[in-house]
Amino acid sequence: MKILLEDIRMSTKNRTEVVDVTANIEEIVRRSGITNGVCVVHTVHSTAAVIVNEHEAGLVKDIVKKVQQDFQRGAGWLHDRVDNNADAHLASSYIGPTRMFPVREGRLVRGPWQNIFLLELDGPRTRKIMVEIIGE
Amino acid sequence: MKILLEDIRMSTKNRTEVVDVTANIEEIVRRSGITNGVCVVHTVHSTAAVIVNEHEAGLVKDIVKKVQQDFQRGAGWLHDRVDNNADAHLASSYIGPTRMFPVREGRLVRGPWQNIFLLELDGPRTRKIMVEIIGE
Amino acid sequence: MKILLEDIRMSTKNRTEVVDVTANIEEIVRRSGITNGVCVVHTVHSTAAVIVNEHEAGLVKDIVKKVQQDFQRGAGWLHDRVDNNADAHLASSYIGPTRMFPVREGRLVRGPWQNIFLLELDGPRTRKIMVEIIGE
Repeated sequence: MKILLEDIRMSTKNRTEVVDVTANIEEIVRRSGITNGVCVVHTVHSTAAVIVNEHEAGLVKDIVKKVQQDFQRGAGWLHDRVDNNADAHLASSYIGPTRMFPVREGRLVRGPWQNIFLLELDGPRTRKIMVEIIGE
Repeated sequence: MKILLEDIRMSTKNRTEVVDVTANIEEIVRRSGITNGVCVVHTVHSTAAVIVNEHEAGLVKDIVKKVQQDFQRGAGWLHDRVDNNADAHLASSYIGPTRMFPVREGRLVRGPWQNIFLLELDGPRTRKIMVEIIGE
Repeated sequence: MKILLEDIRMSTKNRTEVVDVTANIEEIVRRSGITNGVCVVHTVHSTAAVIVNEHEAGLVKDIVKKVQQDFQRGAGWLHDRVDNNADAHLASSYIGPTRMFPVREGRLVRGPWQNIFLLELDGPRTRKIMVEIIGE
C-alpha cells in the first residue's frame, strides 16, 4: 500500500471564481508512482468547494452566475453579523469540499469533459487543496 | 490490498432520468472478493451525476421535477451557445459525479432506503459508471 | 493495510437540525491507530446528510433556514402521498450522505473552520453515522 499526500496552493482573484487544477492534480498522480487506487481532492476551507465539470469558457461563467443566484450575498443571514460571507459557507456546505477519482494504470479515471476546479466562494484569498493518492 | 475496477454501461431514455444501479454495483462488490474496504461509484460524465436515495416511484419523479425546476434549461446560459445543455452541467457540478460506501463482510454498508442511482441530466445517452472497490 | 469501521449513534430533536460530530469522529481516528490514510463519514439514511463547515451559532441557523427554503415541505411532491417527507429525501439526494478527509500523522486533515455535521432533515429520529478509516 502506498499513500501520497501533497498540497496545491493558489491565489484567487475574484469573490466567486472557478480555477482549473486538473493539470496540477495529474502531475501529482504521475509523480506518486501509484498504478491503481484512488485520488481524493480536498480543499481545507469552508468558503470554497471542489467541483468536476467541463472547462468551457461560457460554462465557467455560468457556474459563477448560478452560484451567485442560488446563494445570495447579504440576504439577512445571521452569520453575516460575524463575517459577511454566509452565502459562501452555505454554498460550500451544499456542494462539498471534496471530489475523488479512481486511478488506473497511473492515471486519473475521468471523462474527457471532467476537469477539476477549485470553486472559490469568498475570494480573493490564498487557498490550499490537499491531493491524496492511495493505492499500490 | 485488493483493488477491483469495473464499469457499468447503460442507455438512458429521457432527458432527465433516474436509473437504479444498486443491483449492478452489489454484484460487482460480491464478485470482487473484497471483505472490508470501500466502494466508489463514479460516473465519467459532466452532464450526469450519482445520487443515493429511496427507490419509491413517486420520489423518483419528484427528483426529476426538482432538478428540472432548480436547473432550468435555456435560461440564458452562455454555454448554451456551444451546446444546449448548460443546465445539465450546472446540476452535475453541484451534485457531483461520485458517491461511496464502506464495504463490510463483503457487502455495501448502506441503509435500507439507500439505493444508488445514475442521475441522467442530458439524455438519452449511453453512460458509463466506474465501480471501484479497495480493501482486503 | 488497516481498516476500522465504527458507528456513531445519536438522537436528533428537531425536524431540521445540524449536529456537530467532529469530536466523535476524531476520537475514532485516534483510537484507530492509523497514521496515514483516509476517513469516510457516511450516514446510512435517505433523509439525512453529512456536511462540512464552520461551527458558528448563527451559521448553523442559516444552514437550517436555507435548507428549509430550498427544499420546501408539502410542495405537491408525489412521495408525500406515501410518507410526508419528500423534501428531506430531495435535500439528501442533492447534498449526499458522505464526506471524507485525508488522515495524516494520525489526525484528520481538515481546516480550522471545517467541522463535520450530521444534517438531520426529517427528525426527530435516531440516526447512525458510519466512520471508516483506511490506511496504515
